[in-house]
Amino acid sequence: MFVVGSGARHLEDEIKALGGRILDAEIKRFPDGEKYVRVLGSSEEVTLVQSTFKPQDEHLVEMILLADALREGGVQKLRAVVPYLAYSRQDRVTKEGEPVSVRAVMRTLAVYYDELYVFDLHNPETLKFFPGKAVNLSPARAVAEYFGEKLGEGVVLAPDKGALGRAKAVAEKLGLEYSHFHKVRVSPTEVRMEPVDVDVKGKNVLIVDDIISTGGTMIRAANLLREMGAEKVFVAATHGVFAEGAIERVSKAVDELAVTNTIPTPVSKISVVPEILKL
Amino acid sequence: MFVVGSGARHLEDEIKALGGRILDAEIKRFPDGEKYVRVLGSSEEVTLVQSTFKPQDEHLVEMILLADALREGGVQKLRAVVPYLAYSRQDRVTKEGEPVSVRAVMRTLAVYYDELYVFDLHNPETLKFFPGKAVNLSPARAVAEYFGEKLGEGVVLAPDKGALGRAKAVAEKLGLEYSHFHKVRVSPTEVRMEPVDVDVKGKNVLIVDDIISTGGTMIRAANLLREMGAEKVFVAATHGVFAEGAIERVSKAVDELAVTNTIPTPVSKISVVPEILKL
Repeated sequence: MFVVGSGARHLEDEIKALGGRILDAEIKRFPDGEKYVRVLGSSEEVTLVQSTFKPQDEHLVEMILLADALREGGVQKLRAVVPYLAYSRQDRVTKEGEPVSVRAVMRTLAVYYDELYVFDLHNPETLKFFPGKAVNLSPARAVAEYFGEKLGEGVVLAPDKGALGRAKAVAEKLGLEYSHFHKVRVSPTEVRMEPVDVDVKGKNVLIVDDIISTGGTMIRAANLLREMGAEKVFVAATHGVFAEGAIERVSKAVDELAVTNTIPTPVSKISVVPEILKL
Repeated sequence: MFVVGSGARHLEDEIKALGGRILDAEIKRFPDGEKYVRVLGSSEEVTLVQSTFKPQDEHLVEMILLADALREGGVQKLRAVVPYLAYSRQDRVTKEGEPVSVRAVMRTLAVYYDELYVFDLHNPETLKFFPGKAVNLSPARAVAEYFGEKLGEGVVLAPDKGALGRAKAVAEKLGLEYSHFHKVRVSPTEVRMEPVDVDVKGKNVLIVDDIISTGGTMIRAANLLREMGAEKVFVAATHGVFAEGAIERVSKAVDELAVTNTIPTPVSKISVVPEILKL
């Protein structure tokens, strides 16, 4: 059985449509600002689906309250599916005195949850902070299906070498070429991006990344690909953590921008729900 | 050493003035809404002071992030002083499917904190949910000091029998009489409050409670005391969780309203900081 938190309400209809059975949850706010939750019904095993985009902290605390209610109701096995995990980019100490915030989040979830499933975690190594079973799901199949026909015999590119695995996963599902951008210092003050070992001339190109926030990198990459003679330029990302105006800026620079629905945005056209139903 | 969260900034100057040494903490928000925290310096033992009034969930998550930073920085013993503990009124399951939210909060805090100190917890029995040392501090001394002179040879009253211990604690510090209100059914449709076994005529009265939210009970009690010939009527509470307009309504009905600074409000005239410094 599924329970859907307020950060995954946008996935609820599709979960039902694909045959997922849902225990209804009442989630409201008291006048003093505290959340009130209540789960109607119970089951031996429950999968809570909750995405933890903004307001992140409310979505996280709600997960703890819902889990307490579920355990109180007799749930034996409790899984958390967190399509977008808040604090996942705060994955290391860069200045003395900082926390590893994603560790704090995972340890907190582990108080109640036996298993944790996330999508395309910014740093998959941080899964080790969750003491139970922790799985990083890939949206590659969903991204490949969405862009496959539009891409044709195109190329899949990662914005940097670290993201190459993501481009590879999508490309292999479509039987296409893949590569990544690297940075070339063209003068003491100027660095330019360049795709490595691939000819984009006359080809459609899909750039894939995990998160788009300002979209600056994507826009620079898209402009460069056009200069190099690319045909259509598409941009896909798993998590649309868009800064103010970013959707419009990226959309203007490319032929199509699409992200998954781990976070609901106007361009969340790729659904991860089928992957959740497979668990 | 103390570390002060954003829900206890209003206590920081007084902590310093009373000799408390503070490790500075940087607390800000990223554009995507996530909190960023950093603690400057470290110590073997740290007491984090953080009150968790609205926005409760942000204040709670901040406690976890700060604690992760402190543990990362080598803190061995970590105490949490939470003057106002969010979710403390959600202390039992009243309808099937509900959580015991205060339990969820305490279990979460226990991931990082060895000891927990709160003030005037709504239901002190819930301290058992914190696996480490958990202490319910009393503001009685502070309340008695604040109102002692104003009360003179007055009476201290609790709004109901369950709150009698609170009135007793204040009264005993001042060597005064104490009692509580009870409800008397005066007709099939009318219930009125009445103070038990105490003559308030010509006396100053202090009503003490743990939390004021709407203030309705306090206003009814104050009006009744006036009818019974009480001289001055004062109202004190530990936590000023005031609903919209409640401060004004209660203030109009009584001679003086004062709450402690567990939550910063315009009438938080009684400080709990000396109690914190004694720990």
